[in-house]
Amino acid sequence: MADVLVVGSVAFDSVETPFGKVNEVLGGAASFFSFGASLFAPVKLVATVGADFPEEYLAWFKSRNIDLAGLQRQANGATFRWVGDYGYDLNVAHTIDTQLNVFADFKPQLPESYKDVEFVYLANIMPALQLEVLSQVRKPKFVGLDSMNFWIGNPETKAILGDVIKKVDAVFMNDAEIRQYTGTHNILVAARELLDQGPSVILIKKGEHGAVAVSREGVFVASAFPLESPQDPTGAGDSFAGGFMGHIAQTRDTSWPGIRRAMAYGSVVASFAVEDFSVRRLLSITADDVRHRYAELEQLTALEAQLFSST
Amino acid sequence: MADVLVVGSVAFDSVETPFGKVNEVLGGAASFFSFGASLFAPVKLVATVGADFPEEYLAWFKSRNIDLAGLQRQANGATFRWVGDYGYDLNVAHTIDTQLNVFADFKPQLPESYKDVEFVYLANIMPALQLEVLSQVRKPKFVGLDSMNFWIGNPETKAILGDVIKKVDAVFMNDAEIRQYTGTHNILVAARELLDQGPSVILIKKGEHGAVAVSREGVFVASAFPLESPQDPTGAGDSFAGGFMGHIAQTRDTSWPGIRRAMAYGSVVASFAVEDFSVRRLLSITADDVRHRYAELEQLTALEAQLFSST
Repeated sequence: MADVLVVGSVAFDSVETPFGKVNEVLGGAASFFSFGASLFAPVKLVATVGADFPEEYLAWFKSRNIDLAGLQRQANGATFRWVGDYGYDLNVAHTIDTQLNVFADFKPQLPESYKDVEFVYLANIMPALQLEVLSQVRKPKFVGLDSMNFWIGNPETKAILGDVIKKVDAVFMNDAEIRQYTGTHNILVAARELLDQGPSVILIKKGEHGAVAVSREGVFVASAFPLESPQDPTGAGDSFAGGFMGHIAQTRDTSWPGIRRAMAYGSVVASFAVEDFSVRRLLSITADDVRHRYAELEQLTALEAQLFSST
Repeated sequence: MADVLVVGSVAFDSVETPFGKVNEVLGGAASFFSFGASLFAPVKLVATVGADFPEEYLAWFKSRNIDLAGLQRQANGATFRWVGDYGYDLNVAHTIDTQLNVFADFKPQLPESYKDVEFVYLANIMPALQLEVLSQVRKPKFVGLDSMNFWIGNPETKAILGDVIKKVDAVFMNDAEIRQYTGTHNILVAARELLDQGPSVILIKKGEHGAVAVSREGVFVASAFPLESPQDPTGAGDSFAGGFMGHIAQTRDTSWPGIRRAMAYGSVVASFAVEDFSVRRLLSITADDVRHRYAELEQLTALEAQLFSST
């Protein structure tokens, strides 16, 4: 088992869905990732928060053994805030407000104890910062990268994102992002274009419709775990990445079968994340819950008769 | 192996997609279903066409051993026509024009040789006609039913559709239709409501995102076969149903594992259907092509390491 390093946002989210509403609860890509990955492997967090960040949330991270040596607490500043809502189509988030606050001047600085980490996840932040973090890691073995439309739409940040893509192993994008980045509509063709830039696997997230991985060894279609009462999809993508990277770090298995298995674990973790607001559900589950739902997911998708237990 | 009976539309389709355009080519739910199912089992067609229906198309059906004893050819009338187009999001069809023509006065009449068929598919037509056909089948063993928003939106036809649902084994609906019919947003919950009406399985079609089956024995998530260059999604749903019902009739296996396998065959047949306009691709493939792609689909979705051949 190896550690996973994550750099990204820790935020206060205010979210409304048809199933409820929360105000300034713990959110941010690095939070969802950390709680997801911590079910598999020790996590080292690089992020920044303001003086308003409560001890209670710090205690949540510590309860999952998430290393906070790389968390900068700015005495003069407020934590990043995101306000958004969703309709019944939980696949579409509407951003109402974003306040960068301390995030605007974030200079990620890795503590010495972080620099030998082999498994790294660059959550969605300014591509130049992703590059900066990566340059501080001595010998990364497997690096995952997320981004978003905001950086892809600006030619300057897109160019730097292109530099990051060349240095990573796994690129996480949703279907709209990969189309935007490549200008190619078909996601399989778009993924192969990205593979040509250097990564070994492209992970295309499709929300409730699951995810597709494309590598030089083939294609893997990972179903989402079907849920009867999802509450809030915020953080699903980063929880997916957390389960994925956590499993990779836990097993050190970056083979194609290992990547496929890690994706299914990512789907499982994401399915828990959306069952409640904020990181609540991720905080309440155990590795056993994850294993159990993984076995269920296998039953729900298996074509082979011998996998069925009940028939 | 048993026969499959299908009642539904045989039409001339004029379709434009970003990948091409065709004018008055063979279409209609019963056509796509028949060509799909004929890869597995003998098909008996109940439909109506006009005097303008060409011998060439009849020859296509005959080339697949599709029984046309139940095809009414109206000397005074024109074949049903549908005109539609799609944007890059092939999941959404835009209907430009519909001309019912001979279909407006369709009175389905089963030839004596059809009445002992055990496997029946009621494609999307007026619910009263579906009921009429079903009443003429002596001892149906497994009946599949499709419908559409047009019948669900009208309280009168919806009530009759409700009567049909009580008499069938499998209900095919897309996600929008099942939500409209039940007034329930979550498709798993909606499917369970439909199960309470009598059917043994609800098959929810999600286009390129695959399909989900809900029965009293559980849930099955069937991935769509990922394609690099789909051309025209017209008929995908009925081709899916054709593969599904064809496989059920071929194996006579209506157990839960049999239904799951039939769904995967349905996905495979649908994936071929969308690779070309009209029924062209379905006309050019063999049962071997279907088996080969089924094995590929297994590889693309399997979580179990032992299923991988290449690693």
